[in-house]
Amino acid sequence: MLFRQLFDPETSTYTYLIADRETGDAALVDPVLEQVDRDGQLLQELGLTLRFCLETHVHADHITGTGQLRERTGCLGLVPTGAEVACADRHLEDGEIVMLGSIALEAIATLGHTDSHLAYRVNGDRVLTGDSLLIRGCGRTDFQSGDAGLLYDAVMQRLFTLPPETWVYPGHDYRGRLVSTIGEEMHHNPRFMGHDRASFITLMANLNLPNPQKMAEAVPANQGCGKVPSA
Amino acid sequence: MLFRQLFDPETSTYTYLIADRETGDAALVDPVLEQVDRDGQLLQELGLTLRFCLETHVHADHITGTGQLRERTGCLGLVPTGAEVACADRHLEDGEIVMLGSIALEAIATLGHTDSHLAYRVNGDRVLTGDSLLIRGCGRTDFQSGDAGLLYDAVMQRLFTLPPETWVYPGHDYRGRLVSTIGEEMHHNPRFMGHDRASFITLMANLNLPNPQKMAEAVPANQGCGKVPSA
Repeated sequence: MLFRQLFDPETSTYTYLIADRETGDAALVDPVLEQVDRDGQLLQELGLTLRFCLETHVHADHITGTGQLRERTGCLGLVPTGAEVACADRHLEDGEIVMLGSIALEAIATLGHTDSHLAYRVNGDRVLTGDSLLIRGCGRTDFQSGDAGLLYDAVMQRLFTLPPETWVYPGHDYRGRLVSTIGEEMHHNPRFMGHDRASFITLMANLNLPNPQKMAEAVPANQGCGKVPSA
Repeated sequence: MLFRQLFDPETSTYTYLIADRETGDAALVDPVLEQVDRDGQLLQELGLTLRFCLETHVHADHITGTGQLRERTGCLGLVPTGAEVACADRHLEDGEIVMLGSIALEAIATLGHTDSHLAYRVNGDRVLTGDSLLIRGCGRTDFQSGDAGLLYDAVMQRLFTLPPETWVYPGHDYRGRLVSTIGEEMHHNPRFMGHDRASFITLMANLNLPNPQKMAEAVPANQGCGKVPSA
């Protein structure tokens, strides 16, 4: 397997490139519009064929690169079931498996940050958590039909039940941390350590975060597969 | 082995945490002053004992975290031979091996970005290249006694002679790329592809880069192990 984590400095977004080295079949998870040239160059240099762009959810902080990558490569754009993205090629259900050569990407429903959200488990030993579980944190739940109770349930029931040595690759990090493990987050994540469902909901209701700068632009653009609506 | 790449967003600097999981012996390579709390917390959460802070070179763009980490943990600060860092605990020579439990860090002289610079090969399968070889680039050679010819020789003779599957972990990246391989850089690095020593020297002489913003402050601070000179 080829696995590369990539970073968008402006929005602190991680994109993941996953490929079967034997067949050259590749996928990007959560590509960023401004990084399409970088990602396209890397695919070309590594001799890979982009089959899929997968979204963990409809992002509010950046515009997806999926639309442009689909135009350039003919790849398919896959989004979680329930995501209002009519232009997507497929909506993935919980438990669905996307194959890249011999590599399995397993969709895990992890609602709460938004009302449609998937984590992707890659070949069993790592999980791309999008904006559900972050390193020592979690996605916010105060817009896009977010629901703190559902997020708590998803993390507890769907992620913290994975083997503790599973690598956690998040959708963002704002402090320069790249990877963690399920075991580490179970023991050291302050959003979950010592919190039951009720106190987690209270905690999340009192974060008082400003809205993402690009939100008004990003959500409709991402519902259009990354096409920026004309003014 | 435990291996973690960490990022300082302000200066796009990568710091590396390497540890023997069995013994808990840990080292940080190129820690950043502003990230000392983050790194200290991670060491503590992972149950590691910091034995060494290693510098690849005297940095001009950020202040090292070594001094503060040494005060907090009693670790040793190791710098390349020739670096004017009188407060360092040890100056490492080309070929020296630092052991962390059963993990070997091998110093590889890679001059040119500065007149004292080491890459560190970790357990044979990855190399921390500092500011010598970067992903699709290389360190600048226009200050701190930099020498483009020496950098060319170091990359060609000391790095591009490593097995092509060796992971390349650089000291910086400004486009969100985290890792590469020796083989990838041999084939796709535009600073070296198609350039002989003479044309590389010409190329490096014409980059016309602005000086790092923190240079006047960072170099003397790093010669003092990260102690910021009082005004």
